[in-house]
Amino acid sequence: QGILERLDAGEIVIGDGGFVFALEKRGYVKAGPWTPEATVEHPEAVRQLHREFLRAGSNVLQTFTFYASEDKLENRGNYVAEKISSQKVNEAACDIAREVADEGDALVAGGVSQTPSYLSCKDKTEVKAVFRKQLDVFMKKNVDFLIAEYFEHIEEAVWAVEVLKESGKPVAATMCIGPEGDMHGVSPGECAVQLVKAGASIVGVNCHFDTETCLETVRLMKEGLQAAKLKAHLMSQPLAFHTPDCGKQGFIDLPEFPFGLEPRIATRWDIQKYARKAYDLGVRFIGGCCGFEPYHIRAIAEELAPERGFLPEASEKHGSWGDNLSMHTKPWVRARARKVYWENLKPASGRPYCPSMSKPDGWGVTKGAKELMQQKEATTEQQLKELFQKQKV
Amino acid sequence: QGILERLDAGEIVIGDGGFVFALEKRGYVKAGPWTPEATVEHPEAVRQLHREFLRAGSNVLQTFTFYASEDKLENRGNYVAEKISSQKVNEAACDIAREVADEGDALVAGGVSQTPSYLSCKDKTEVKAVFRKQLDVFMKKNVDFLIAEYFEHIEEAVWAVEVLKESGKPVAATMCIGPEGDMHGVSPGECAVQLVKAGASIVGVNCHFDTETCLETVRLMKEGLQAAKLKAHLMSQPLAFHTPDCGKQGFIDLPEFPFGLEPRIATRWDIQKYARKAYDLGVRFIGGCCGFEPYHIRAIAEELAPERGFLPEASEKHGSWGDNLSMHTKPWVRARARKVYWENLKPASGRPYCPSMSKPDGWGVTKGAKELMQQKEATTEQQLKELFQKQKV
Amino acid sequence: QGILERLDAGEIVIGDGGFVFALEKRGYVKAGPWTPEATVEHPEAVRQLHREFLRAGSNVLQTFTFYASEDKLENRGNYVAEKISSQKVNEAACDIAREVADEGDALVAGGVSQTPSYLSCKDKTEVKAVFRKQLDVFMKKNVDFLIAEYFEHIEEAVWAVEVLKESGKPVAATMCIGPEGDMHGVSPGECAVQLVKAGASIVGVNCHFDTETCLETVRLMKEGLQAAKLKAHLMSQPLAFHTPDCGKQGFIDLPEFPFGLEPRIATRWDIQKYARKAYDLGVRFIGGCCGFEPYHIRAIAEELAPERGFLPEASEKHGSWGDNLSMHTKPWVRARARKVYWENLKPASGRPYCPSMSKPDGWGVTKGAKELMQQKEATTEQQLKELFQKQKV
Amino acid sequence: QGILERLDAGEIVIGDGGFVFALEKRGYVKAGPWTPEATVEHPEAVRQLHREFLRAGSNVLQTFTFYASEDKLENRGNYVAEKISSQKVNEAACDIAREVADEGDALVAGGVSQTPSYLSCKDKTEVKAVFRKQLDVFMKKNVDFLIAEYFEHIEEAVWAVEVLKESGKPVAATMCIGPEGDMHGVSPGECAVQLVKAGASIVGVNCHFDTETCLETVRLMKEGLQAAKLKAHLMSQPLAFHTPDCGKQGFIDLPEFPFGLEPRIATRWDIQKYARKAYDLGVRFIGGCCGFEPYHIRAIAEELAPERGFLPEASEKHGSWGDNLSMHTKPWVRARARKVYWENLKPASGRPYCPSMSKPDGWGVTKGAKELMQQKEATTEQQLKELFQKQKV
Repeated sequence: QGILERLDAGEIVIGDGGFVFALEKRGYVKAGPWTPEATVEHPEAVRQLHREFLRAGSNVLQTFTFYASEDKLENRGNYVAEKISSQKVNEAACDIAREVADEGDALVAGGVSQTPSYLSCKDKTEVKAVFRKQLDVFMKKNVDFLIAEYFEHIEEAVWAVEVLKESGKPVAATMCIGPEGDMHGVSPGECAVQLVKAGASIVGVNCHFDTETCLETVRLMKEGLQAAKLKAHLMSQPLAFHTPDCGKQGFIDLPEFPFGLEPRIATRWDIQKYARKAYDLGVRFIGGCCGFEPYHIRAIAEELAPERGFLPEASEKHGSWGDNLSMHTKPWVRARARKVYWENLKPASGRPYCPSMSKPDGWGVTKGAKELMQQKEATTEQQLKELFQKQKV
Repeated sequence: QGILERLDAGEIVIGDGGFVFALEKRGYVKAGPWTPEATVEHPEAVRQLHREFLRAGSNVLQTFTFYASEDKLENRGNYVAEKISSQKVNEAACDIAREVADEGDALVAGGVSQTPSYLSCKDKTEVKAVFRKQLDVFMKKNVDFLIAEYFEHIEEAVWAVEVLKESGKPVAATMCIGPEGDMHGVSPGECAVQLVKAGASIVGVNCHFDTETCLETVRLMKEGLQAAKLKAHLMSQPLAFHTPDCGKQGFIDLPEFPFGLEPRIATRWDIQKYARKAYDLGVRFIGGCCGFEPYHIRAIAEELAPERGFLPEASEKHGSWGDNLSMHTKPWVRARARKVYWENLKPASGRPYCPSMSKPDGWGVTKGAKELMQQKEATTEQQLKELFQKQKV
Repeated sequence: QGILERLDAGEIVIGDGGFVFALEKRGYVKAGPWTPEATVEHPEAVRQLHREFLRAGSNVLQTFTFYASEDKLENRGNYVAEKISSQKVNEAACDIAREVADEGDALVAGGVSQTPSYLSCKDKTEVKAVFRKQLDVFMKKNVDFLIAEYFEHIEEAVWAVEVLKESGKPVAATMCIGPEGDMHGVSPGECAVQLVKAGASIVGVNCHFDTETCLETVRLMKEGLQAAKLKAHLMSQPLAFHTPDCGKQGFIDLPEFPFGLEPRIATRWDIQKYARKAYDLGVRFIGGCCGFEPYHIRAIAEELAPERGFLPEASEKHGSWGDNLSMHTKPWVRARARKVYWENLKPASGRPYCPSMSKPDGWGVTKGAKELMQQKEATTEQQLKELFQKQKV
Repeated sequence: QGILERLDAGEIVIGDGGFVFALEKRGYVKAGPWTPEATVEHPEAVRQLHREFLRAGSNVLQTFTFYASEDKLENRGNYVAEKISSQKVNEAACDIAREVADEGDALVAGGVSQTPSYLSCKDKTEVKAVFRKQLDVFMKKNVDFLIAEYFEHIEEAVWAVEVLKESGKPVAATMCIGPEGDMHGVSPGECAVQLVKAGASIVGVNCHFDTETCLETVRLMKEGLQAAKLKAHLMSQPLAFHTPDCGKQGFIDLPEFPFGLEPRIATRWDIQKYARKAYDLGVRFIGGCCGFEPYHIRAIAEELAPERGFLPEASEKHGSWGDNLSMHTKPWVRARARKVYWENLKPASGRPYCPSMSKPDGWGVTKGAKELMQQKEATTEQQLKELFQKQKV
């Protein structure tokens, strides 16, 4: 059954986790460029991660094609051997995802994300051509559906959806925005409306913000759709990092990004709470983004097992709410084998010399820049940067 | 070249990271029992993790035989299909480790750890028989050397070393103790002396405590050996969790163990500092234990690259001290491409409702229990527990 | 010169600090009732505190008549000797304030605050009668001007202003509200407009929130006045506690209120930043409320000394930005005698087992109660409480 | 009854709090020099503070003669009008203390503290002469007993005790040291022994460390006395600041000293726990030092009311464990009127951008300096400073 059949039937669809962060820690992705040439260089590592998410309960395996557009691989990926073409990276990603999906009950989703072409002010035709190249591979490899994800500008996201929609396959679209909206100040509700009008059947958010913030953004999208009398399935794939201190641009601007985020990593219990809250909000495509490891995805599947009627394979190696600790030799560790214990634990950081929140860097949060963005006088990051430098904000 | 040839020549030998924690998060190990039947059930997952550590710079691949003694697998591992014998688990572990070691320049070390037999007061002969069964497999599979690790009682550790020493292969021995010494109050210095006298060529600590505490314990071991005019190589494989608030029994007693430790996870920079400090202390076998992921091991290899003269393979996908961020589009993120930035960052937890330290649970830290242990009147955990219950401490 | 002459001339007028909290710590006020019978019982203690604020730079001494309305003293103050009438308390307060004001250059302001009569739904006439009784004393004692402060409901505040206005003396009015507005959801801007229309020449906020939040509320009041083309002087008397985690009802609902607020106490440097920010916003009547000790008021006077041209008397015993530390024997303590040091210090709590933020208690912040208040269906605290109990929110 | 009669009879004697910190906040003492010329300049302020401590339960009023030795007032106090001689300051201090003591049941204790003369290596005769000048005033004014307090070097403390002992009056002696001992590394136990041998009837610690650390130091003193078969009453007057992160020299070296200590201020409940713990340890002269305000002293008196059989006068304005909150209008605030609530509250700092612990500044905690001090090669602060500068530690 396809993605829409499942969602239309009221099923909960579990997404997968964050490939670039997980594979960076495993040694296969370079932080900074974050490009996915590992699909060609080290397919076994990509395959293994897909498999872990599948075991953890993912119903959708996204092809590892994040930032795999031709312009991106050329731009920043120049440390990668020249022979590895964007086409090869995309094809290998499709093959690996399909191979693992066939080991279980999962769909393969081909994914595109925001492009350097848009940021450097290429026009609609050029930007769409970039998406179309990736789409050609997805069609050749016959993925099950398509996802446009990680867009900071609704304009580019709409272009992506329009291209993907040409395929005739179902299209999901997520933006990496918070409650304040996109980089030009378009509200989440308005973004959702535009995405649905462009052809997306599933809309939501991914990346940049923690679970709380993402769900608040999805809530605003839902309200926007209701006000416009539009219908779409809702989707959420947040960070597995706590980021209550983010500004408009999300975790990129936190001083800890990307190499000091460890103290912010969510526990499995944080994720169970997220899964429940997402479900209660009406979100039915529930997954994760950067920071989500297989055990976080498993936490979604375990929290929603009562609704779904089954546990994922990897739950063989886990118990509900820590109940396997009841076999521990120490009585006070046995006492932790309870939902009420883990639900209420306020985990310590072990870092008494560190604060609990940070001030985000950059103009992303300065008043001047905010106003500029709201006025839409500065329409590209480039222009904003120039203004920023001029003003020495 | 064998382990001792390398160490005798002054080489830095990099160990690997923590299998049970990493594979628990990937969905292949059950927290609580922590037993390694995945070597038989999911060899590809074990193989992949070995490979990641190898790429990250490990010179030693430990067979994934932690808690794989027959008595342990029987005792707590009864959720595992009966057919998976301890022998099969140990054999598979050796085969996988060797297969990956041969992909690079690494040694295979067969490992044994503390046993339920000792804790339930079996005698020396019985406990030694348990170790000997694992040793038989290691000899059959011809591992390069042997490690006795994760011992809380020096008596059992000495028995393990004596058994492993029968093989004629080099023996390393690490205890999971802190500066206060073993569970009967034997000091780290005295533990080191007994281990060396029993035949260990390499001694040190692993698990239970963070890098700072472990190095302090190794320092005390070094002093003990010097005072006794004994020589041995030093080894350290700490947690990758910050645990300044531990009591005598280490992180087991922290309320966050084992499912809420995320905020305590070390950054790569924390580990670089650890590697430098370990090196300065004279430790030459430097690795990690629970919480160490491949990128933490890579951090050791990168920090000590000047001394070793080379970088590990996985450093292709990394830059020194974040220098690959210099390609970022935002000027304030580019400003993070500097050693001084990451070295001084005090990473926030993003958890303002959580404390930074916890009070350990249990009698492990109560005064009464401490005194009992120091008096050595209570010689087993069982006895201590009974006393504990009697006293309602 | 009177208060309006000063403000109209562009002078900065410095208020005083929080009497009930300071005198509670000194042993003269009972937390809970917070009533000011100390004016009769221990005039020397009240006089001394006035004198300290005067020395610290206060230009206005408020009579210690907070919660000194007859209905309040009867209601909750029944532990106080019956003979101490409301009239005596108010008269003594006026006498003490005048006596100290005459020691320097300060005005005496008679103050009224919200009443139990209003909360128990007495009508306008009855509530006004309560205020009028206090006003009679203020007129008899000929205070210099009047302040209506600590009102959670704009309706009652307007009544108070109307009564005070009958006197012909200048009237200031402050509400203990945050950016969300009064307990019925009337916005700060609208509150300011109503207060000015009722006759207040000075409007602003006091108590319940920290300096940041109060200034944000005053900013909204200013916007409201501008939009309505009304003019008034602005006033701010916030808490000297950090309360970023407050809900709508302010610090009352924080779990630390009132006996665990110590870790939240502002430093003198926090207050200097507040004074500067208030000044930049256009506030010219700048003081404090609960938690403000004399040295906090001195910090306002020192920060604004360049604008005012003089330092307060108590600055004899202080140096600018810690410069008297330059005489210290230890070089590293001498290094603290600098503005840049104290301005950037992130002071540690010394409490690693405590969090940095709390969740406020109560229905004050629950969604249900908020909606009720916004609907204005529940117009009194009493009604809200009943609804709250009915709903078991 | 005199101090020794009371203590010998088993009475609990409650000390007073910290004058220099409290009066600095009130505007009468200058931080840095910390000298007490306010006794002459503003006697009413000193009198009022004495009175508050008396009301709070103090049985001992210490003359406000801290740092009032002639050499100190000359050295650093040169901002004070020349006419105010040390003798005048000391005499006024005695008069004020006696006046207030006579309002209740309190003794007057004349106090001396460490001198610049000792630190600049004056000899025994010269240093003793300095103490003798203060003692002459105390004898003339006929104080009830004498306290030598705030000594970092046992040698100077012994000299002080010897001088005070010449008077024939009972002598108490406290050092501002932690468990590591005095600045030359003399252990607390040895310090206590030397003080008792020099003639002190009461020994203990004051200032520099928090309640936990001070009681640990007193415990070590008690052990030292027991081992030496000496008898003395125990006394403790700690900081009301949490300082778990102090080095050997106490809170002076914390980056927050002296103008950023607010987040560390103890709650009244912290002090109740301290009082109980001190009592259980056998301490019978229980007071406070810097940071102790009248309500902290009251907390001691309230905690020990069951043992003493009465409450202090200021408890009229307080309830046990917050029980007066039971009259509050909000049900969730009423719920705070319980011992179990306040006993277990972990108060938040409201400062998410601040850490919970700090690294102390200075050589006080560096290894090199520690070793120097332990070797006693550097016997004065001056010498240590020179070494410090030479080594650029």
